[in-house]
Amino acid sequence: MSGTAPDDVRLARAYLSRVAEPHAGALAGLIGQVGPVEAAALVRAGEVSPSVVSQTSARREEERAREDLERIAGRGGRLVVPEDDEWPGWPFIALTLGQAQRLRCGGEPVALWVRGPHDLGEVTGKAVAVVGSRAASGYGEHVAAEFGYGLAQAGVTVVSGAAYGIDGAAHRGALGGGGVTVAVLACGVDVAYPAGHQGLLGKIAKEGLVISEYPPGVTPARHRFLTRNRLIAALGAGTVVVEAGRRSGAKNTAAITVALGRVLMVVPGPVTSASSAGCHELLRERQAEPVSSVAEVVESVGRFGDDLATQPAQKQSELGAPQGEAMRVYEALGMRTAVSAELVSVESGVALERVRALLPELELAGLAAQVDGGWQRLEVPR
Amino acid sequence: MSGTAPDDVRLARAYLSRVAEPHAGALAGLIGQVGPVEAAALVRAGEVSPSVVSQTSARREEERAREDLERIAGRGGRLVVPEDDEWPGWPFIALTLGQAQRLRCGGEPVALWVRGPHDLGEVTGKAVAVVGSRAASGYGEHVAAEFGYGLAQAGVTVVSGAAYGIDGAAHRGALGGGGVTVAVLACGVDVAYPAGHQGLLGKIAKEGLVISEYPPGVTPARHRFLTRNRLIAALGAGTVVVEAGRRSGAKNTAAITVALGRVLMVVPGPVTSASSAGCHELLRERQAEPVSSVAEVVESVGRFGDDLATQPAQKQSELGAPQGEAMRVYEALGMRTAVSAELVSVESGVALERVRALLPELELAGLAAQVDGGWQRLEVPR
Repeated sequence: MSGTAPDDVRLARAYLSRVAEPHAGALAGLIGQVGPVEAAALVRAGEVSPSVVSQTSARREEERAREDLERIAGRGGRLVVPEDDEWPGWPFIALTLGQAQRLRCGGEPVALWVRGPHDLGEVTGKAVAVVGSRAASGYGEHVAAEFGYGLAQAGVTVVSGAAYGIDGAAHRGALGGGGVTVAVLACGVDVAYPAGHQGLLGKIAKEGLVISEYPPGVTPARHRFLTRNRLIAALGAGTVVVEAGRRSGAKNTAAITVALGRVLMVVPGPVTSASSAGCHELLRERQAEPVSSVAEVVESVGRFGDDLATQPAQKQSELGAPQGEAMRVYEALGMRTAVSAELVSVESGVALERVRALLPELELAGLAAQVDGGWQRLEVPR
Repeated sequence: MSGTAPDDVRLARAYLSRVAEPHAGALAGLIGQVGPVEAAALVRAGEVSPSVVSQTSARREEERAREDLERIAGRGGRLVVPEDDEWPGWPFIALTLGQAQRLRCGGEPVALWVRGPHDLGEVTGKAVAVVGSRAASGYGEHVAAEFGYGLAQAGVTVVSGAAYGIDGAAHRGALGGGGVTVAVLACGVDVAYPAGHQGLLGKIAKEGLVISEYPPGVTPARHRFLTRNRLIAALGAGTVVVEAGRRSGAKNTAAITVALGRVLMVVPGPVTSASSAGCHELLRERQAEPVSSVAEVVESVGRFGDDLATQPAQKQSELGAPQGEAMRVYEALGMRTAVSAELVSVESGVALERVRALLPELELAGLAAQVDGGWQRLEVPR
């Protein structure tokens, strides 16, 4: 559980997390270029590009990093940063790709404030998001609780947003099933919102994980729910919308799920119920697959897993080599010289967009490295 | 309403309808070759191919044509034959194409026994089938009745099978909506089956149509329901399955609907209800589109209408020319010489299978004719 990030890195990211309102794409870009410590120094000094200035100038004098870290520790929590082993780097890759940028939901979080006894990376390795309307019907809450319970029993982490209605029922079901559930908040992890879920949030912080991009004490706001939704969608291999009216916020999470290339699933319901109208709309538009049981959710996500190159890394540890398209991309890389993604695409016959998605995944799996602006193959560990 | 078929043709088909158990593909082929009167004579004499013998030998001495025609007339009914103006030739084309043959549901009926005051061809020109489980839930019956009512109000004929549960609710809804409903039976149209629907069948025979391939007095049997289902699927531009368990007979009608190239629609329901499990299965297998309202049914069937070449004939009467692929096929035909379907495919760039489906439709629309084993263009009427 103990993070491997150096203290100055964690302090720098705590500072940046307080300074910039998520999601801050330009700041994320700067951190990527110069690292978090240097980025924090440049932000403090105001020596940054206009786009980073606009994201950081308002609060750049809020030097509360130590105080925030103490505050979260006081609640039994911690700040998890990308330099920590438990950072969910794999699920977040999708946030850095083109589709996410186009939907304006792109960019990895600067850091995550976390309460709970689990390794964040581990529990989100096999996770499904279960979301839906606040104004849920008895049917919807029943199904959400059943799905939460069943997924937990199947060893799948249930990710949701801790709202009233479907979210709450899914979290409760997962806790009842003896599994792990992750509540992703649109406010500080020490803020009891919604108020009626104070008890539930306390229980999740003890038995699951309560996480947020927002530093301690930050209160929820409408735009923060939308920003938060991208993390819910990214942390699950797929999202199940249990109930959604035509204008439900859950449809936002659904759209992001599709944009991130995750499997979108919906639970059908009575056509006489307004709470299911949004689900049926997604079905009719062929955005989503219908799921009637936990077995079908697992099947849908499993099918997806075959497509996605999360596969190679898992397989690599078992079999020593990536599979499918990832294998073809890997084979097209040279051992001694770095080649461009374009050349890899031509060599492998895999579409350029897929190559651009697979290369960072091979890198994360330790099978490829970025060298001199190109890509090079690394020996498969035995 | 008065048919145009000569008496000897009607007598011949009444005889053949009694002699061969539907559907009798080989007999249909013989009728297509030599006409019904000659076919009846050959069957009587036993001078037919072994496959036709096997379909007709058991009952070929049942000379009950006149008696059957009197019997149906006594019930206020009639025998409708392909040579009559009101024969639904257009909807039945699908039964003669390859897909239907492969599913063993192919072959136009030899004739149809009909009770009711409407022109069969006219009312099935704009029709949708609404089917489902006998063991329906209150929810299912409610939706079936609502759909029946709404379709009737929209001027769409509701075709169903007069069974308990969904079928009955759909018929009743359509009657309540002041529209036309067609009950397709797996027994004689004078047989009250199911017994509890005697009153409903009487009402449909007065305000809609009760039709069957089976001569008067024939009792229902399991295989007759399956044979009957192909007529329900063929007579609608699409089929709505309101409720179906995993092993419901409605799934047979659903499979035929898809095989015939019609739009298959299902009504979602609670995932906690076994009566909707078959519907959700069809959705998950992407066999069907979900529909939540009558407006969506009309939209789905309308969309389908654009694809299908029922379009050209309708358009032709308005605009004087077919549209889309049908137009391209029409253009590829010569005015003076007959050409093969293969050549039309090459000329038009329309797939051979589509050409083979469109040519008979152009023929029915009076835009093409079969000459010397090839196809020739006819002038568009002004």
